[in-house]
Order: sequence, then structure tokens, then C-alpha cells
Amino acid sequence: MSEKKKTNIILFSGDYDKAMAAYIIANGAAAYDHDVTIFHTFWGLNALRKDEAVSVKKGFIEKMFAKLMPRGANQMGLSKMNFAGFGPKMIKSIMKKHNAMPLPQLIELAQEQGVKLVACTMTMDLLGLKKEELLDGIEYAGVAAYLADAEEGQVNLFI
Amino acid sequence: MSEKKKTNIILFSGDYDKAMAAYIIANGAAAYDHDVTIFHTFWGLNALRKDEAVSVKKGFIEKMFAKLMPRGANQMGLSKMNFAGFGPKMIKSIMKKHNAMPLPQLIELAQEQGVKLVACTMTMDLLGLKKEELLDGIEYAGVAAYLADAEEGQVNLFI
Amino acid sequence: MSEKKKTNIILFSGDYDKAMAAYIIANGAAAYDHDVTIFHTFWGLNALRKDEAVSVKKGFIEKMFAKLMPRGANQMGLSKMNFAGFGPKMIKSIMKKHNAMPLPQLIELAQEQGVKLVACTMTMDLLGLKKEELLDGIEYAGVAAYLADAEEGQVNLFI
Repeated sequence: MSEKKKTNIILFSGDYDKAMAAYIIANGAAAYDHDVTIFHTFWGLNALRKDEAVSVKKGFIEKMFAKLMPRGANQMGLSKMNFAGFGPKMIKSIMKKHNAMPLPQLIELAQEQGVKLVACTMTMDLLGLKKEELLDGIEYAGVAAYLADAEEGQVNLFI
Repeated sequence: MSEKKKTNIILFSGDYDKAMAAYIIANGAAAYDHDVTIFHTFWGLNALRKDEAVSVKKGFIEKMFAKLMPRGANQMGLSKMNFAGFGPKMIKSIMKKHNAMPLPQLIELAQEQGVKLVACTMTMDLLGLKKEELLDGIEYAGVAAYLADAEEGQVNLFI
Repeated sequence: MSEKKKTNIILFSGDYDKAMAAYIIANGAAAYDHDVTIFHTFWGLNALRKDEAVSVKKGFIEKMFAKLMPRGANQMGLSKMNFAGFGPKMIKSIMKKHNAMPLPQLIELAQEQGVKLVACTMTMDLLGLKKEELLDGIEYAGVAAYLADAEEGQVNLFI
């Protein structure tokens, strides 16, 4: 009796294109019958933000971070050729033409396929993000939980 | 009877220095007798572009991307201290002094050593890159092929 | 009798936040009883620089690099929202509030926990960094040594 293979991705980056890569690999691995986890830390947490404003109590610096960081997957910029937001528009228009899934749908698909989406609690604290601001149905954990998954993983990536 | 170990690198980045790191690790692993694959996706595809212009039919946005992205390994910028192209010149001049191989030669060496160079077909579509524009002797595949390699790999990296 | 698990991190990035992620994972893995190595290459070498100036003989370009690159972990910028150095100040102030360890202390802790810190000799040459400029108690090696570790590793990451 063979165990399922495991894919564990740390999504550190807050770039639209890198998050897309992470979710495409994750969805592929889930379709391939792997147990898949995406551990969102630092700027990668922005992919999990709800796109509407959520009223929570924050300190001054936390408010600034919340304001300056993209609210949700659809607001993220590109790692290259962002051109003040024009780059993501170009990419999204091409993706539409090619029937490629935009990032918010890739995230939905991942949730449907049972990909475990984890938010790193330590960096949530640092960036001042509250659970109410993040998508429903995700898990909360720290580096120990990541390592427990990763040491059993066949495919471990830092994106 | 032991099987060969496997190294699988996803080259997502279009930076000269990161591509150099990818190819140095790949060439090292090949010398170490690993089966090595570099899966080029998104901006990493630019490392595989021929340096001369190739006439292919493209739509408007695809033409813009083709124009704005570096044509081949030698045109790529640095991830840090690029200084509008002065950084790569400095690095290349130092590399020459130290007899370190520049990126185009590292890619040639990889091909000679049998490193499998793969271009991600999905992102070729998105960026409007055609097979005629990419180096000869490479392979074309998608995320499923990557995962089939990666789940057997000892060293999996995302660069 | 079971062998220790191994975590091998390549720290390529010279960003404060990415280096923090690398050292948090490394310290977590060491606490988890893994053998842990951080292989510092390219801009990641800056995390190992002593923060005082060290007088060594250098050529012109090497002097420029030495001047332009951050001298030690505390001087590194953020990969996102650096805002000309204001971003790191914000992050450090929040980290203090949350009693999170700043990067120099994370590096000290790693050394205390026996994490093997390696400086890549090839890129030291390229960037003109000398052993006298780097922290005491670290090791010096090349890509072959990295691969020897990585092919035995459970968790291999490129950061």
C-alpha cells in the first residue's frame, strides 16, 4: 500500500506571476493525486486577502501596511514589466484570449481540489493582517507545521 | 543496482544572475552524474531565445512583449544593482577576469552535458513566444511533465 | 537506527525579508533536529558580511561592489516596499513590538544551533569579497559541496 506523494510550496512572493506559477503547480500536483500544501508567508499572504475592505482594529503602521499592500490576488503586480499596473492588464488580457485561468480562479480551483492553503501566523502578526481579512476555509500555522509537511515531501519549492 | 539521482530546476526568473545560478547548479549536477532538467517558464523562457530576430506572425500585445523582453541570455539584466545595464557589464567584465563562463556558454555546456532544457508551452503562449524563436535541441512540455520529473527528484529548486 | 533529516537552503537573495525567511526556516529545522546548511551565494553573501569596514586589497570594480552592497545583515533592504530604506525600519519596529528576532540575532542563533553557514567561493571571487570581511566560524565551498548535501536532503530550497 503506497502513500500519497506530497508537494509543499512556500509562497513568499506577492507578485501576480509568481503566485500564478505556485497555484498552477499546486493544481497540477493535486490533479496528479499529490497531497498539496501552499504555505503563504510575508507578501504571499496578500494572495489570501479578501478583495473587499474588512473593518478590523489596527495600529498605525499596520494600517499603512494594509493600505500599501495589494488587497487580494487580483490586485497583485508583476515581478517583471509591471509598468505601473499596465503589465498585469496585458497579461490578464492575453490570458483571457488563451482561456487561461486568472489567479482568483486558480485559488478557487485549488480550494475545490483540496489543496491545503495555510497562512503563516508569525508574518500575519508582522504585517498586521487579521483572520477576518483572509479567505474562508484556510488554515493557520507556523514554521514547525511547514517543516512537518516538508520533511515528508517529494516536491518542496520556495516561490 | 542504483538509479541515477535527479535534479529538476524551474527557471522562472529572467535575471542574468539567477539564470547563471540555475545553470551552474545544473552543470554541477550533470557532472555529478544526475539526470538534470531545467524547466523554463515565464521570464525564464528568455534565456532560451535566439539572439537574432526571427520573423514570426504575432498579435499586437505579443509583439510588444517580444520587443520588451530580452532577446536571449546575453541581454538579460541583473536582479540587483542592474543600474540600467551597467551592472551586467561589470559582472561580465569580472567574470572574464576570473575565467568564469558567461551565461550563453553555460547554456551550451548544459546542452553538451545532456541537461534536458524544457520550455513551458503554456507560458510560451502567454508571452507569445514561438518555437522558431527558441534555441534548437530543446523540449516542449507543461506542468504535468514537470511534476512527473519532480516527484522522482532528489534536488528540486524554483529559481 | 535512523539518520538525521537534512535541510539545505541556498540563500541567493540579498533582501532582508528573504534572508529572514531563510534563517527562520533554518532555525526551525535545527530545532526539529535536522542537519541544516545555508549555502550563501551571490547577493546572499551580504548577510555574512561583518558590519564594520575591513581593510583588504581590492581592484576598482571590486571596491565599487563592496561599496554598493549592504555591509551585513542589518543593512539589507526589503524585496517589496523598501521605500528607500523606510520599509526595513517599519518592519524592524514591528518586529520589536512583537518580540520577533531581527536578522543579525537569527544568524547568531543559527550559529549557536549548529546550522552550517557556507559562503560560495566562486561568487565571493566575482563580487570581490574576502574571507576577512565575512563572519567568523563559517565554511567555504562550491557547488559540488552543495550538491553533495542536497542530494541527501529532505528539504531543499532556493531563496
